[in-house]
Amino acid sequence: MSDSAVGTALDRAATMAEVGERGLVRHLRSRIPVGPGVLVGVGDDAAAVETGALTLVTTDVLVEGVHFRREWGPANLIGRKALTVSLSDIAAMAGIPRFAVVSLCLPPDTTVEFVDSLYDGLLERSAETGVSVVGGNVSSTPGPLTIDVTLLGQGDRLLRREGAQPGDLVVVTGMLGGAAAGLSFLLKGTRLGAEGILGEAGTWAGAAPDSLLSCLRAQLDPTPPLAFGRALAEHDIVHAAMDLSDGLSGDLLTLCHASDVSAWVDGSALPVDPCAAQLEKEGGTDAFSVALHGGEDYQLLLAVPPDALDRLKDVAVVWDLPVTAVGEFAAGPPGLSMKFGDRMKRLRPKSHEHFKDPGSRRSDPSAEA
Amino acid sequence: MSDSAVGTALDRAATMAEVGERGLVRHLRSRIPVGPGVLVGVGDDAAAVETGALTLVTTDVLVEGVHFRREWGPANLIGRKALTVSLSDIAAMAGIPRFAVVSLCLPPDTTVEFVDSLYDGLLERSAETGVSVVGGNVSSTPGPLTIDVTLLGQGDRLLRREGAQPGDLVVVTGMLGGAAAGLSFLLKGTRLGAEGILGEAGTWAGAAPDSLLSCLRAQLDPTPPLAFGRALAEHDIVHAAMDLSDGLSGDLLTLCHASDVSAWVDGSALPVDPCAAQLEKEGGTDAFSVALHGGEDYQLLLAVPPDALDRLKDVAVVWDLPVTAVGEFAAGPPGLSMKFGDRMKRLRPKSHEHFKDPGSRRSDPSAEA
Repeated sequence: MSDSAVGTALDRAATMAEVGERGLVRHLRSRIPVGPGVLVGVGDDAAAVETGALTLVTTDVLVEGVHFRREWGPANLIGRKALTVSLSDIAAMAGIPRFAVVSLCLPPDTTVEFVDSLYDGLLERSAETGVSVVGGNVSSTPGPLTIDVTLLGQGDRLLRREGAQPGDLVVVTGMLGGAAAGLSFLLKGTRLGAEGILGEAGTWAGAAPDSLLSCLRAQLDPTPPLAFGRALAEHDIVHAAMDLSDGLSGDLLTLCHASDVSAWVDGSALPVDPCAAQLEKEGGTDAFSVALHGGEDYQLLLAVPPDALDRLKDVAVVWDLPVTAVGEFAAGPPGLSMKFGDRMKRLRPKSHEHFKDPGSRRSDPSAEA
Repeated sequence: MSDSAVGTALDRAATMAEVGERGLVRHLRSRIPVGPGVLVGVGDDAAAVETGALTLVTTDVLVEGVHFRREWGPANLIGRKALTVSLSDIAAMAGIPRFAVVSLCLPPDTTVEFVDSLYDGLLERSAETGVSVVGGNVSSTPGPLTIDVTLLGQGDRLLRREGAQPGDLVVVTGMLGGAAAGLSFLLKGTRLGAEGILGEAGTWAGAAPDSLLSCLRAQLDPTPPLAFGRALAEHDIVHAAMDLSDGLSGDLLTLCHASDVSAWVDGSALPVDPCAAQLEKEGGTDAFSVALHGGEDYQLLLAVPPDALDRLKDVAVVWDLPVTAVGEFAAGPPGLSMKFGDRMKRLRPKSHEHFKDPGSRRSDPSAEA
């Protein structure tokens, strides 16, 4: 957050009510660099950017009290995540992220310091991924702080949710459940401090905090495999793909609906995050359950023809990314089953829905139209 | 709103808490048509759209209680305006609007009926302007209803805010003050009913409601000159342009800053909206003041070389659009003066800033980064 000082000189303790929207906008503008392909950046009626023949676009919102709480960790991670959730969407389409616009709704008592930290993370993540912030909007709100990021990407060969065939393997990248395991501790008072160390332990009473920190980080600063989807699309290896934002069970059902197939999952094959497993021993939630149902791992869910699995693994090795076949798509109406040994049982997704459970503080990405 | 019935069968009285995000998203998806140039529309990780070499992008948010109140008028007008404010931005850059993504944050008690009406207006406005809704996001919020629209457009020759020269005329399109005059009545209890008739009169006690309805409509359903900017860009007539969203005084100062010039305005030349003037006689606010400072007319503010004024008027005749020279740009640091006869006086913008006046219910567009 050391580069927060860049920008117009504003008292960092001042609130939005004091500096006003215009003052804040001027300040933020001066912090945003002009990247390649940006003909008109922030400061005009609209931005103008160089695009290819095909442009990808996705929008995602983080709402305070629904998707994050300020006290959970450093503010810059909120800014990073606001971009990351959209990066994950573009990556799952095999696109290259290019340009972002950022809409902030801020309560009047929000400080310049907080917005600066949020932008530190957002601009840091932008720089890491070659994204240029080209515009945005600042509004006051009587409600919670809200960050809406719309991300444009470029694509050529796209990965779609439709296209999974009966007989395709259900494959996931990475390990699952870390983000949801981290969330369960955040909800019980554990806090991530500055510089990535443990802030408050909350209910955690384990020996070494490495597993805990890993899961907190997975929840607060997710790292989707941003280039893997593109490699898969170039080599025409998979039939369908989507990112795992709502949890394996919920997202797999979504993929089944998009492709008009059913699927089963082998419970014994799930790549349960080892840190989530360690936390289970130390008072955490059921690691198998969070791997199956927990959201926000932002890994990829893939439909892979069986004869392409070896090629998939060859690509994954290059990216040092675990890939695991966890089940199979089958003919039939969209629906899920779980296989335990020889038994097959109906599997109900448990992904969270905010409206149906308004009392819950469960963090979860929003539904995508 | 007769086409609200289109979509998945949902109980229109049901709340978001009852149908859930996924239920609502499925319902909205089924209502959104796939337009030209849309390769992947709603329902995947990201949309994929055909774009030219240059893409314009703008984002705008409407927050309940800040930018609108549900009781002011029919819900479909909220959806129309959510798109219109972004249409105005693309038009002010001389772009053609193409694709929109819509991010909705909804309180749990929002009904399907309300969201459907909102989408009626949004989709109606989209169809009128050749825009395809290609994606979006639905999230719950513990705060106010929020609609964030990001609009992509295509452009070639762009109009910019920078480029005004000393000696250029300050020109505005249309008549000014109608939207702000309408707002002042809405804030005092006047309501627009269904089918465009007067709902509640509030403090209005005039003879015929035509002027009132015109101003209410200007506030609730603005109609920016969407094609005029393109015509100007094609004929290379103006040096700079922006849309009038925050009010002439505030926006002119913004244009001065972007172009590094000053400007003066001739008070006697302002094209005061005749309906706003009529309302002043009937208990409304000072029509001159709302024409000078009031926001949301969504007309164009232009910097026009004096020898191009006749050509500008020739184009304006085609569009049946009033154009009025109201002042002149001058050398010097950014700042405004007002001319009354032979006297020149410093002019301070009075555009509203939400944060600085949190108690106000003044509706006004958000600051743009």
